Amino acid sequence: MASESGKLWGGRFVGAVDPIMEKFNASIAYDRHLWEVDVQGSKAYSRGLEKAGLLTKAEMDQILHGLDKVAEEWAQGTFKLNSNDEDIHTANERRLKELIGATAGKLHTGRSRNDQVVTDLRLWMRQTCSTLSGLLWELIRTMVDRAEAERDVLFPGYTHLQRAQPIRWSHWILSHAVALTRDSERLLEVRKRINVLPLGRQSPGCGPRAAPSSMDATSERDFVAEFLFWASLCMTHLSRMAEDLILYCTKEFSFVQLSDAYSTGSSLMPQKKNPDSLELIRSKAGRVFGRCAGLLMTLKGLPSTYNKDLQEDKEAVFEVSDTMSAVLQVATGVISTLQIHQENMGQALSPDMLATDLAYYLVRKGMPFRQAHEASGKAVFMAETKGVALNQLSLQELQTISPLFSGDVICVWDYGHSVEQYGALGGTARSSVDWQIRQVRALLQAQQA
Amino acid sequence: MASESGKLWGGRFVGAVDPIMEKFNASIAYDRHLWEVDVQGSKAYSRGLEKAGLLTKAEMDQILHGLDKVAEEWAQGTFKLNSNDEDIHTANERRLKELIGATAGKLHTGRSRNDQVVTDLRLWMRQTCSTLSGLLWELIRTMVDRAEAERDVLFPGYTHLQRAQPIRWSHWILSHAVALTRDSERLLEVRKRINVLPLGRQSPGCGPRAAPSSMDATSERDFVAEFLFWASLCMTHLSRMAEDLILYCTKEFSFVQLSDAYSTGSSLMPQKKNPDSLELIRSKAGRVFGRCAGLLMTLKGLPSTYNKDLQEDKEAVFEVSDTMSAVLQVATGVISTLQIHQENMGQALSPDMLATDLAYYLVRKGMPFRQAHEASGKAVFMAETKGVALNQLSLQELQTISPLFSGDVICVWDYGHSVEQYGALGGTARSSVDWQIRQVRALLQAQQA
Amino acid sequence: MASESGKLWGGRFVGAVDPIMEKFNASIAYDRHLWEVDVQGSKAYSRGLEKAGLLTKAEMDQILHGLDKVAEEWAQGTFKLNSNDEDIHTANERRLKELIGATAGKLHTGRSRNDQVVTDLRLWMRQTCSTLSGLLWELIRTMVDRAEAERDVLFPGYTHLQRAQPIRWSHWILSHAVALTRDSERLLEVRKRINVLPLGRQSPGCGPRAAPSSMDATSERDFVAEFLFWASLCMTHLSRMAEDLILYCTKEFSFVQLSDAYSTGSSLMPQKKNPDSLELIRSKAGRVFGRCAGLLMTLKGLPSTYNKDLQEDKEAVFEVSDTMSAVLQVATGVISTLQIHQENMGQALSPDMLATDLAYYLVRKGMPFRQAHEASGKAVFMAETKGVALNQLSLQELQTISPLFSGDVICVWDYGHSVEQYGALGGTARSSVDWQIRQVRALLQAQQA
Amino acid sequence: MASESGKLWGGRFVGAVDPIMEKFNASIAYDRHLWEVDVQGSKAYSRGLEKAGLLTKAEMDQILHGLDKVAEEWAQGTFKLNSNDEDIHTANERRLKELIGATAGKLHTGRSRNDQVVTDLRLWMRQTCSTLSGLLWELIRTMVDRAEAERDVLFPGYTHLQRAQPIRWSHWILSHAVALTRDSERLLEVRKRINVLPLGRQSPGCGPRAAPSSMDATSERDFVAEFLFWASLCMTHLSRMAEDLILYCTKEFSFVQLSDAYSTGSSLMPQKKNPDSLELIRSKAGRVFGRCAGLLMTLKGLPSTYNKDLQEDKEAVFEVSDTMSAVLQVATGVISTLQIHQENMGQALSPDMLATDLAYYLVRKGMPFRQAHEASGKAVFMAETKGVALNQLSLQELQTISPLFSGDVICVWDYGHSVEQYGALGGTARSSVDWQIRQVRALLQAQQA
Repeated sequence: MASESGKLWGGRFVGAVDPIMEKFNASIAYDRHLWEVDVQGSKAYSRGLEKAGLLTKAEMDQILHGLDKVAEEWAQGTFKLNSNDEDIHTANERRLKELIGATAGKLHTGRSRNDQVVTDLRLWMRQTCSTLSGLLWELIRTMVDRAEAERDVLFPGYTHLQRAQPIRWSHWILSHAVALTRDSERLLEVRKRINVLPLGRQSPGCGPRAAPSSMDATSERDFVAEFLFWASLCMTHLSRMAEDLILYCTKEFSFVQLSDAYSTGSSLMPQKKNPDSLELIRSKAGRVFGRCAGLLMTLKGLPSTYNKDLQEDKEAVFEVSDTMSAVLQVATGVISTLQIHQENMGQALSPDMLATDLAYYLVRKGMPFRQAHEASGKAVFMAETKGVALNQLSLQELQTISPLFSGDVICVWDYGHSVEQYGALGGTARSSVDWQIRQVRALLQAQQA
Repeated sequence: MASESGKLWGGRFVGAVDPIMEKFNASIAYDRHLWEVDVQGSKAYSRGLEKAGLLTKAEMDQILHGLDKVAEEWAQGTFKLNSNDEDIHTANERRLKELIGATAGKLHTGRSRNDQVVTDLRLWMRQTCSTLSGLLWELIRTMVDRAEAERDVLFPGYTHLQRAQPIRWSHWILSHAVALTRDSERLLEVRKRINVLPLGRQSPGCGPRAAPSSMDATSERDFVAEFLFWASLCMTHLSRMAEDLILYCTKEFSFVQLSDAYSTGSSLMPQKKNPDSLELIRSKAGRVFGRCAGLLMTLKGLPSTYNKDLQEDKEAVFEVSDTMSAVLQVATGVISTLQIHQENMGQALSPDMLATDLAYYLVRKGMPFRQAHEASGKAVFMAETKGVALNQLSLQELQTISPLFSGDVICVWDYGHSVEQYGALGGTARSSVDWQIRQVRALLQAQQA
Repeated sequence: MASESGKLWGGRFVGAVDPIMEKFNASIAYDRHLWEVDVQGSKAYSRGLEKAGLLTKAEMDQILHGLDKVAEEWAQGTFKLNSNDEDIHTANERRLKELIGATAGKLHTGRSRNDQVVTDLRLWMRQTCSTLSGLLWELIRTMVDRAEAERDVLFPGYTHLQRAQPIRWSHWILSHAVALTRDSERLLEVRKRINVLPLGRQSPGCGPRAAPSSMDATSERDFVAEFLFWASLCMTHLSRMAEDLILYCTKEFSFVQLSDAYSTGSSLMPQKKNPDSLELIRSKAGRVFGRCAGLLMTLKGLPSTYNKDLQEDKEAVFEVSDTMSAVLQVATGVISTLQIHQENMGQALSPDMLATDLAYYLVRKGMPFRQAHEASGKAVFMAETKGVALNQLSLQELQTISPLFSGDVICVWDYGHSVEQYGALGGTARSSVDWQIRQVRALLQAQQA
Repeated sequence: MASESGKLWGGRFVGAVDPIMEKFNASIAYDRHLWEVDVQGSKAYSRGLEKAGLLTKAEMDQILHGLDKVAEEWAQGTFKLNSNDEDIHTANERRLKELIGATAGKLHTGRSRNDQVVTDLRLWMRQTCSTLSGLLWELIRTMVDRAEAERDVLFPGYTHLQRAQPIRWSHWILSHAVALTRDSERLLEVRKRINVLPLGRQSPGCGPRAAPSSMDATSERDFVAEFLFWASLCMTHLSRMAEDLILYCTKEFSFVQLSDAYSTGSSLMPQKKNPDSLELIRSKAGRVFGRCAGLLMTLKGLPSTYNKDLQEDKEAVFEVSDTMSAVLQVATGVISTLQIHQENMGQALSPDMLATDLAYYLVRKGMPFRQAHEASGKAVFMAETKGVALNQLSLQELQTISPLFSGDVICVWDYGHSVEQYGALGGTARSSVDWQIRQVRALLQAQQA
């Protein structure tokens, strides 16, 4: 009989239990990750009970001591689960009772399982956010270091994957680093809402710090949804950076070469070197977002307060945390070991990428931009038709397009000069790139403070 | 070389191989599930090589024998993975070589890892579809058996969760069973597209059965996406059935009582009995769909042929298969052990649910339906205003609404008579419910044939 | 020829254009919503150009005047689109040129279409966030007003949709209001990241305020993804509130009655009154989240900088904004006109909902909680077995369970007393509910300041 | 009063109506697309009523005539909506009544709005499936025609975006065409489940063809979910083809050139030609899947039978149908006007892509494949180290790797010979490509039959 097997809900059930249902219902397979925070939470709770007069000092000490013992067993790998331990809370409570006897039963005064579950998860996620934040900044720092060292390397900027204008390689790196700083900012905001303790509702007279509404507190999973979405958006950024690098690794682009540590070969084709690390990073955006989508669908239309549906939260959080941790570390490794082919980058620049500069040349001579854009377009077309590079058009030829062209047009055909024009904040001039580096470093320092 | 140049920019590791990357890249943790189909696939492939003259009979026999040994080790739990076994294919190949020597290397002639991966997955999923189909039909049969046994029980049909018209309890059961028969039909269609063998591309001269295009075959994951969507839609059905039953289990409805085997108690509130099994079923719709969403996002915009991103397919399939298996079995258990409270069901019927019948009464007297509907609405309003049940209005009162009312209106107030009106196929009359039962049973028999 | 049709990209294209492609490519059908912010943005930009010396004062004045004229035409509905106006920016630019001639062409110096598109969208969304924030707070205020007025009404609190413990009706209202205050907090954070101006990249020498990286600025859509997720999470909250109310509207619960203004009848069943407004609110969670999912999938794996894929952002934002606006207003209407059936609420309370209080009674007598929980469970079982209410067990009967029971157990059987026990912050005691009301009102005031 | 305004649910409502709620509730803005099928459905239904004796022949004729008049007004654009027409069904019914008087009211005997809504949608989708199927086959035919014409063009096959082995350009085209034939197959399966008529439930005695369960029939939206998923998977295919072509259009690959009709220029950079058509195709995968995700979330956990939530189905279907229609036509245009740069394709082939063939050379000499793979890898490494092409290694050099190399190794260095080795079904040999063409053409013919 259930009541004899020591199930928590005690003396009521009489039916047998379906083993598949038991397994379906049990969460111990994954929520054992929470052992440490579960013990921490219980220790804090027992102190609260003592303050509220619901435990004597001696009882509290006995409980704290017992909980330390439980934690020790987990840490040393000697904790033994038994078949009735359906979740980490039951397991720890059962073990505590074995260790200290009936006093253990007092720990749960005014604390529902639903409160305890959510408290443990919050404590665990608070730690995880700190860890992930550290890994994220490690990646950003690596990127900024690299951007600083290589800021004199020029290569093509693209839009629509078509060569657009010359930019600094560092400008490319920083464009991704800046996106990641927004992820860092958002992670702090999410952490702020994780860091709320729901316990309190069921505690007549005792007051650990409480969320605004006990009803909301046991069943809202905003902090989980936010975390999963945070990870989804961060992964979207990393998927875009990975996509760029996968392209830059192709034979056709040949701008960069991935370290062997982050590549694999082909079981069939001996000459291949595949950017598996980058493809895996790109792919994980789907997995992580899938977890976010799954949780929101589970939450949709749920009645108020706790429903067992909410048990879906933890596996999603654990999987996404593990994925983010691996992705951030691998991305850091990739960036720190990547070799660039500066020569290929330079050779990919071509005079037609200065067509916009040619238009600006005319603007400086007084032509409205739209007209100048059209004139420059005609020059591009003329060069294509004649089968020469844009900077090979003679002055005479250019003057058939506009009389404003004169000998000084020659200054346009300089990539280094081109990038230096974009000195506005956020631009690709050296001063501007330096400014970006300083901005991100300042955020990094603020973060560490 | 990477091991010498090490990291260029600080970052996190030195040396040829990053252990986090190794773990990130490896799939052995989950694709070991494929050991059996991997061996099967290799056996079939070696037979193909022999036919094509690429293996001698003796070599083939040696390989087949070695593969049987590998399978035996897996089956007995004695297979030992070593640290270079990044996936199940590598592991089995390595072990085969240890067992039979260099001949093992001939097995991989013209077979890329990418072909092998997808072949194994297809073989595994073919088996899984059969298993899930069996579990699905076990659930449907349970529902139909129950529908047959309880077809004389009436209770309220709802739309918008408002009581609508009296129906048979069996009509409710069958409405969900019919939805599941569509899932069964779809599963067969998906299985048809799983059951295609991609091997062949890399096999000059040897011809196991081939998919139409080798390029498409190694990288299309339609069959995975379809399977995940199949599961998502099936779970949506089960989530709706679970929702109904959760409502019917409430104190307020009290139509059914869940077996103790599928309920749990509250750690705080001794009087509670919670429908955890049904809530878990409802919640899994989110998880399963999340996997489907994740895979599609991963596939979006991938370049042709194999990219490592596709490695995301297997964990999704394994998790969803396990979930479906558990959900279908638990749902079967729930339905087969549910108790119904026939008395409460009957008491929930009330005369206002016959207002549509009252309108039909007028239609039969010659009034156009829209007018009849309005007249019946007036009767409902009159009854509400007077604070009496609809069937308590006197004939005189009804006649103030329409002179077509006469003494025979009394026949309207009979729930049993009401349901019998709906004798069209799909309706709630007994003959119609019996027809539905026969229809589903016929599908079941066709399935087993 | 394209160059003759006046296409912006001028003198280069020679091929004809596919009309389906033109329509596929054009965004004017929806981005005309942006007319006002497009004009505002251009006015600010022309001022920037003047400061940077790229426009004379006279040119700037001419442009500003022309833009005012364009705005006037939109406002009065006299603006005429022509067939080459593929988007709002082209349309306004074309019209400006018609109005003021070639000077118009100077406005676009150093401004790419991609910058302009994202600037306009940010300006529009900034306004929208303010509007939605106002509507959200209107809903919250309505809920708090109602909570204050009806805080002496008790009804059942549920978990797992099973009756759990008595709570105040206001506690239920506030649990949803508190969730909405988190949405308000998040909306402010999103708005902060919307309120960044990307223009600058292409502006040698002129400096409207710039985003940290011009490359990132034209192609990041974090602010769109965040807004769509904000809406998704807010809708999840509203879907849960709607679900509760749909249940409370059923005949079986009968706790509330929806105003006719927010219900509809049945075209078939005259007696029906359906909570369509609540069902629509619940359903929109799917639609809104679908837009969020769609955008993230579109963003996944996109190469750096602008790609036309990003054009998917605007329809998503417009549809979600419209939906949120309607949902928030309808929810406010529903809450403000809802009638509660206080008597039914009271009758739904039953002594077994005090089983937890009975356990606490024993705790106060010195029994550890787990033992007390089990003892109370036995009392529930005993009452069920004897077919009496829990409070009908005699003292003698209770004493067979525990000798700690004495005459004062009678005090347990009082619902008003029960709720008053939960005086911790967030609880259901009157003082605690009052505190919640004050908390939310304080946030409201801070918001308006 | 509502009853005076002629609302369908007649004499019951007394409250006023919130205009925002009215708009929120109304579907006429989009379901007017259904006018034609609504009239068709009503005509069929009135014939059913006549057969069942619920309409006289004269009444039926009057109704049919009236409905034709209604259809005529829609077709000619003279149908006038009034402010109470909340949906297309109400509008048509109201107009019919104006045209033929009270007999119109008889049309709705035994037909609920919920049945009518779903019937109309099914009829509309049946037509749409046919249209989309035609467009899909138009695209496939264009691809096959092209594949046939250009099957002697070789270019690099890629895996992981790294050059792998030489393949025929037609092999690439057909790999995508084959994926689309699966979409066609699936569309037929979906259409089969669309083509079911739910009417019948409410029809005592009259029997249009019925779905198996009336309860299921009014509220199941499997056919909608399936259609949306069908579109999502098809878009995933097209997004992958678009991605390939976007890459092939880059300066770096330069394999193909998009027609001007499917490109656009840059408003800033005169030299740019952007593949907007392909980017839009790629992006729509997100939008379409978002609708699928949205609908499934809406369906999750809905109670049985009709709930207003289901009204979300139609906008999703309409938007996705429009999107698919445009995408398929634009894709057809892109493929039919694309120019290929055969010379660039040829130049992209390099001897290292024959490393697998080199391994097969050794296999033919008797070396097990794994060893041969390793030997070939050594040759690749040797060539890299020496800075020569793989085919520039001397025989002597090769023999240091394996004594099996002899003079005939020279035959390996031929791209045309290489592709001809893969003559298995699905391979890249000419015979195999021809077989693929015949396979797809056969499906096309079967489709048209």
